[in-house]
Amino acid sequence: MSDFSAQDYAYMARALQLAAKGRFSSAPNPNVGCVLVKAGQIIGEGYHLRAGEPHAEINAMQDALAKGHSLSGASCYVSLEPCCHYGRTPPCAKALIEAEIATVVMAMRDPNPQVAGGGMTMLQAAGVSVKSGLLAVQAERLNAGFLMRMRVNRPRVRLKIAVSLDGRTALANGQSQWITSPLSRQDVQKERAQSHAILSTAETVIADDASLNVRLTQLSASIKLPEPIRQPVRVIIDRRQQLTGQERLFSLPGLIIHVVDKPALRTLGQSLVIPACENWLAQVLSVLAAEQINDLWVEAGATFSGALLEAGLVDELVIYQASLSLGCHAREMAVTHELSELSQATRWRLIEQRRIGDDLKYIYQPKEANSCLQES
Amino acid sequence: MSDFSAQDYAYMARALQLAAKGRFSSAPNPNVGCVLVKAGQIIGEGYHLRAGEPHAEINAMQDALAKGHSLSGASCYVSLEPCCHYGRTPPCAKALIEAEIATVVMAMRDPNPQVAGGGMTMLQAAGVSVKSGLLAVQAERLNAGFLMRMRVNRPRVRLKIAVSLDGRTALANGQSQWITSPLSRQDVQKERAQSHAILSTAETVIADDASLNVRLTQLSASIKLPEPIRQPVRVIIDRRQQLTGQERLFSLPGLIIHVVDKPALRTLGQSLVIPACENWLAQVLSVLAAEQINDLWVEAGATFSGALLEAGLVDELVIYQASLSLGCHAREMAVTHELSELSQATRWRLIEQRRIGDDLKYIYQPKEANSCLQES
Repeated sequence: MSDFSAQDYAYMARALQLAAKGRFSSAPNPNVGCVLVKAGQIIGEGYHLRAGEPHAEINAMQDALAKGHSLSGASCYVSLEPCCHYGRTPPCAKALIEAEIATVVMAMRDPNPQVAGGGMTMLQAAGVSVKSGLLAVQAERLNAGFLMRMRVNRPRVRLKIAVSLDGRTALANGQSQWITSPLSRQDVQKERAQSHAILSTAETVIADDASLNVRLTQLSASIKLPEPIRQPVRVIIDRRQQLTGQERLFSLPGLIIHVVDKPALRTLGQSLVIPACENWLAQVLSVLAAEQINDLWVEAGATFSGALLEAGLVDELVIYQASLSLGCHAREMAVTHELSELSQATRWRLIEQRRIGDDLKYIYQPKEANSCLQES
Repeated sequence: MSDFSAQDYAYMARALQLAAKGRFSSAPNPNVGCVLVKAGQIIGEGYHLRAGEPHAEINAMQDALAKGHSLSGASCYVSLEPCCHYGRTPPCAKALIEAEIATVVMAMRDPNPQVAGGGMTMLQAAGVSVKSGLLAVQAERLNAGFLMRMRVNRPRVRLKIAVSLDGRTALANGQSQWITSPLSRQDVQKERAQSHAILSTAETVIADDASLNVRLTQLSASIKLPEPIRQPVRVIIDRRQQLTGQERLFSLPGLIIHVVDKPALRTLGQSLVIPACENWLAQVLSVLAAEQINDLWVEAGATFSGALLEAGLVDELVIYQASLSLGCHAREMAVTHELSELSQATRWRLIEQRRIGDDLKYIYQPKEANSCLQES
């Protein structure tokens, strides 16, 4: 990687920063940012906001042209390999070639089978100098869900659990509102807004009358969601078909995917019938990947959480821990089978820990990666 | 507090730093540090290392004299009010007066009934200028256990629990070695070394063959304990008189206090008979205070931990949380009664959180202080 200069790092860091601006809206497309540089000056910047709208490279070129710059001979720093296929927009590699961009530095290749090195090849064939691998780890992180879907055909699963300091989610009688503080719940809204879909179960929907959307009034004022606001797809697991359509979440705007294992008795949103089978949860995830879901934020009860955990399908465990103790009769985090040896315990890597007011938020990833994320 | 200058703060901060050097050895006495200043220069420094040895002020004066300085007219910065009573050493206030110290700045008064403003009065009566209250919060923290014993006649109780990320301390079959990492266990050794006494129960001693001492080989190399090393007093609760004297801890050096509620069947260390009563645990603590225990570090099982918690006798909950999950059949943190309302849950203040390798350490204090600590 020593063939990159300090300037290269700075430009790519900026491209990544721009890319992140799309995190509330770009799905199912990845977050991509782009910086155009000429004679040591940034002449144009862009990022991808929303599927169907121009890609980062095109926005950066338009920005440069609007500012009166010529693109010929410029260097392009882009956080993901330029596309080479006609999707809802024409290929960016072609546009970069036509604009006579001299050099393309990309953070990483796009594993999307429609690209997968094709953008790089197209550029090189046209005489553009191409380098790859600058700030690749950071670029991976930015699109962890998209990359996972491309590589292993399932969304990235992030399981959120709000617990007391003794690891309990509710009193034995079910009381749980609220264990965590308003600041933590505000953070949950941000996480929901960044997620492509929220998954829960009929049991949770019924017990909590959960709406499973982003409550804009609960978002931190510092977060501006791009208009029109994307509400996450709501995925409801309802194997026993308990939902009636009268639940509050059906009255709120946004797509609902109703997952059942037998033909649905009622039309409740978009019905997804996945016949019962041994690895049913994995099946559900692969069908959700086919529905182009990149990131799945799961808020469910202890039974479902336990099933996901035991199936090895949790890529991130996101725990909000409140500063109160509920005691040993309170409800457990996840219903799981008894272990007879410590060596059977699932081991996790602590990725992030942060104080939120009087609460703690921490994020764990499985130590034995069940994901194909190539992060170090 | 604006009658203190930036220099005053710097000198007192140094005095506090010196005081902390006594934290592995000064008990039952408080940690005290002292800095002597003349013409804007520190001419002497000292701290209190061990009961029976000279106090901080005396050590600082000897340091200044050894360096050839005259003490007359110097200012003295000391983290606790100088004593005015003849204990194992003569009163420091008297020594400061005889040395013609002009000014004494102290962080806080000593609530010890033998002092309690008397040092201040003695100094003022002799014409010494006295100021108090500089970095008082920090000085309180340094001697939290001592101050608690002086004010409410019981040791400060710190309950240590090592848990999985789902709040469990052992598998259902009892396996628990080891949940936390060697680095966390190293930190526990440091905490033990700083504690005046370690309390556990006969059940834990028998189950784990616990030695409850400071294992010097497990201490971080960066920690140098002053010689001769003080092993914490080991306090063992043994109401059912299960201990035989054959347990490993009896073969290790250091005082053992054997707490029973009926006359002891066997002489196992120093016997403390506390007749059964409603507030038995509080009684035990008050007797331990009479034994001059300032800081009590508790490592016990879920039953005893639960009893302490429910009695409101835990001043700090020190949790080491490992990055593994043990599942809902594993053993709980503390055995407590069922709650029927969230409002009954004990609320805590998060005082400190820190990552230790792959583990987390956090410290909680009760929100409704059951202590008399005057910390903000």
